[in-house]
Amino acid sequence: MHCLRYALTAPGDICQILLSMSRSSAIITIGNEILLGRTLNTNLAWLASELALAGVPVTYAIVVQDQREQILQALQDTWGKYDIVITTGGLGPTPDDITKASIAEYFGKELQFDPDVWDNVQMLFSRRNMPAPESNRSQALVPAGFTALHNELGTAPGLCHQEGKRVFFALQGVPTEMRHIYTRHIQPMLPALYPEARRITQKTLHSFGISESALAELFYVSDISPQVNLAWLPQTGRVDLRFYGEDEPAVKQAVRSACEKIGHLIWGEDDDTPADALYRCLKDKGLSLAVAESCTGGLIQAYLTEVAGISDVFRGGVVAYHNDVKTGLLDVTSEVVIREGAVCGEVARQMAIGVRQALNSDVSIAITGIAGPAGGSPEKPVGLVWFAYCVYDKVFVEKAVFNGDRAGIRHKAAEMAILKLTRLLKEGTL
Amino acid sequence: MHCLRYALTAPGDICQILLSMSRSSAIITIGNEILLGRTLNTNLAWLASELALAGVPVTYAIVVQDQREQILQALQDTWGKYDIVITTGGLGPTPDDITKASIAEYFGKELQFDPDVWDNVQMLFSRRNMPAPESNRSQALVPAGFTALHNELGTAPGLCHQEGKRVFFALQGVPTEMRHIYTRHIQPMLPALYPEARRITQKTLHSFGISESALAELFYVSDISPQVNLAWLPQTGRVDLRFYGEDEPAVKQAVRSACEKIGHLIWGEDDDTPADALYRCLKDKGLSLAVAESCTGGLIQAYLTEVAGISDVFRGGVVAYHNDVKTGLLDVTSEVVIREGAVCGEVARQMAIGVRQALNSDVSIAITGIAGPAGGSPEKPVGLVWFAYCVYDKVFVEKAVFNGDRAGIRHKAAEMAILKLTRLLKEGTL
Repeated sequence: MHCLRYALTAPGDICQILLSMSRSSAIITIGNEILLGRTLNTNLAWLASELALAGVPVTYAIVVQDQREQILQALQDTWGKYDIVITTGGLGPTPDDITKASIAEYFGKELQFDPDVWDNVQMLFSRRNMPAPESNRSQALVPAGFTALHNELGTAPGLCHQEGKRVFFALQGVPTEMRHIYTRHIQPMLPALYPEARRITQKTLHSFGISESALAELFYVSDISPQVNLAWLPQTGRVDLRFYGEDEPAVKQAVRSACEKIGHLIWGEDDDTPADALYRCLKDKGLSLAVAESCTGGLIQAYLTEVAGISDVFRGGVVAYHNDVKTGLLDVTSEVVIREGAVCGEVARQMAIGVRQALNSDVSIAITGIAGPAGGSPEKPVGLVWFAYCVYDKVFVEKAVFNGDRAGIRHKAAEMAILKLTRLLKEGTL
Repeated sequence: MHCLRYALTAPGDICQILLSMSRSSAIITIGNEILLGRTLNTNLAWLASELALAGVPVTYAIVVQDQREQILQALQDTWGKYDIVITTGGLGPTPDDITKASIAEYFGKELQFDPDVWDNVQMLFSRRNMPAPESNRSQALVPAGFTALHNELGTAPGLCHQEGKRVFFALQGVPTEMRHIYTRHIQPMLPALYPEARRITQKTLHSFGISESALAELFYVSDISPQVNLAWLPQTGRVDLRFYGEDEPAVKQAVRSACEKIGHLIWGEDDDTPADALYRCLKDKGLSLAVAESCTGGLIQAYLTEVAGISDVFRGGVVAYHNDVKTGLLDVTSEVVIREGAVCGEVARQMAIGVRQALNSDVSIAITGIAGPAGGSPEKPVGLVWFAYCVYDKVFVEKAVFNGDRAGIRHKAAEMAILKLTRLLKEGTL
């Protein structure tokens, strides 16, 4: 079967392409709180992802203390060896922020007062109706010959120093400021600086309701250009397909041809969440939704209401944790609860019907299950979840058993419920 | 005011203590997926936190590719310079896992077959009713003179090599396996290896309903031993107090004296969540809870039901996103919605009363607000949230305005609602 090679393609393959590129970056993270395990190094992950797409992947990263000797050593280990060297952190005005002084020392430059930076500091303080403290004057010191990168979000500017094709940047440790400086100042200069850099185009499609192998039988390698790489990324209840390569038109063409062939199995792309997909689908069809939750305890509705604008389609719901709430607000019959327990298909069915009626919605989701860690039995193990979906007066009921801990079971069940209703609506099954 | 020095103590101070210790560790993270920004380096954060408490803090960390030269260089940069050097990642059986071969090369050791490790591999496969593939025999290869650290959770053992007081460990990249090996094999050996290492004891208390400065006037520096350090960590709507130091009895005594003085303002410690605190409080008092949510859309209830056992006290609730649900299920009067809009104190009050009656609970929370990004006005800006709490037939209503984006506003509002009810119940205000 000629799709097998692709079905076996490890997502690691993109690594090999990226990390064999001619240009490369190094990141120096400066911060005691990372070395003490207080803070996750999200700046590294974000910068690494951006630089990989720009064709200048990070091939080396160091984390050092807020300490002169370690910063000097890190600069020595990287500057001249990588095309781009970036430090993050330690640019603030307090005494433990020694990054700027250490950089000036390493490059043998004096710190000079930059009036434009000081203007920005004063402007930021005046917005808060405060005079800029004199201690903040240090923010306006810039190593001679370095460019200060204007920071709209904070008082510390980014710093840039270029020698031929090699560039050094000092960025803030605060993630929003760091991203702002990268996006505004660094990203735009890279194409001109490295015109030969092999920029990667990538697009991820999210599929549902089909296994990796079944999907691979519908969508063949031969359907896409050899210029395009495809990684299959299976997750619980869904498979993601990531298309990537250096040839942007070829990647776009591959995505289009995938959408033509298996578009009915695709619910979203890139950063779409399941809730985004259901929102779009309900809005397209002009349908309103209500939700009844037991084991997920509000999580489905919390995911849905992350979407700004969901009030167009989402009426609300009931968290029926105690059985009295199932029978009282949702008209579940006590007989079935007594006979079969709260976790069964019939209770899910009655919850879905009940919440649709109580909230006067077009469609509904209901869920009841055992999230654990207690409450399981041989017949009804932890992880057993019953789902029911109404579209007007038609009802669809099914069950699933999830692995994992309480949080994992709840998350997977909530996500599956949202995707399943989306699929039922798209397919017009109900 | 003699509390000022402490009120100004930056949390960074613990860094200075820790990082000035005589023993130190270095972590080498091996993994392309970290350098490409696909994966956050949670292993580094976890190990760093553990090693800091053990008195052997991480003072240097590197991330390198799955590549022989980079691994050899990283070992050269660290071994002999730090007391403990740990690699994570690249121990699997696939061709891109080259950590073990690189380590053997660096230390000049042959790889030798270890029958005990192979027994473990076979046992793990037999549990899945599968024969161990021959390709997995490579898992049983151990550099000569190294100790294989038994891995109950996976086929790759950890590796240990000791020279005098210096120790090298190779750990798995899979977080659960890495933590298992650290906890089972490494943590127990450290006290005997470094008896002089200054282990840190720390305890965090979470306070609520009081500002940092007001709290500092109730609890003085003079109340605790000079052996104990105190960091004030303000968060939205709460202040955390972290006590830490090398003298365990003194830290414990300081925490006890804080609890005596300001115990009524403390809702939890260390990893407690607001939902844990409310659960314990409701259970102690034998009260049942119902929740009515608008802007948070189920998030309060999702947080509450993260707590295993919450079904003892939590009956459920209503997500009243659409106004019809507020008036229909919660008996909010349409007049007030028409006159004042859905976001006002009176609607919150009626929602709290309505959900308590509908779900027949002792106490209730109701919340209605504007999470944004749209829907704000000069009178009712994005971030405005009204809260109401019932304890039996008494009602307490208040409002707050939160900064941040939609997700931030929702999270802060949900957390504040849970903590506020906890405080009202503890204080017996209602």
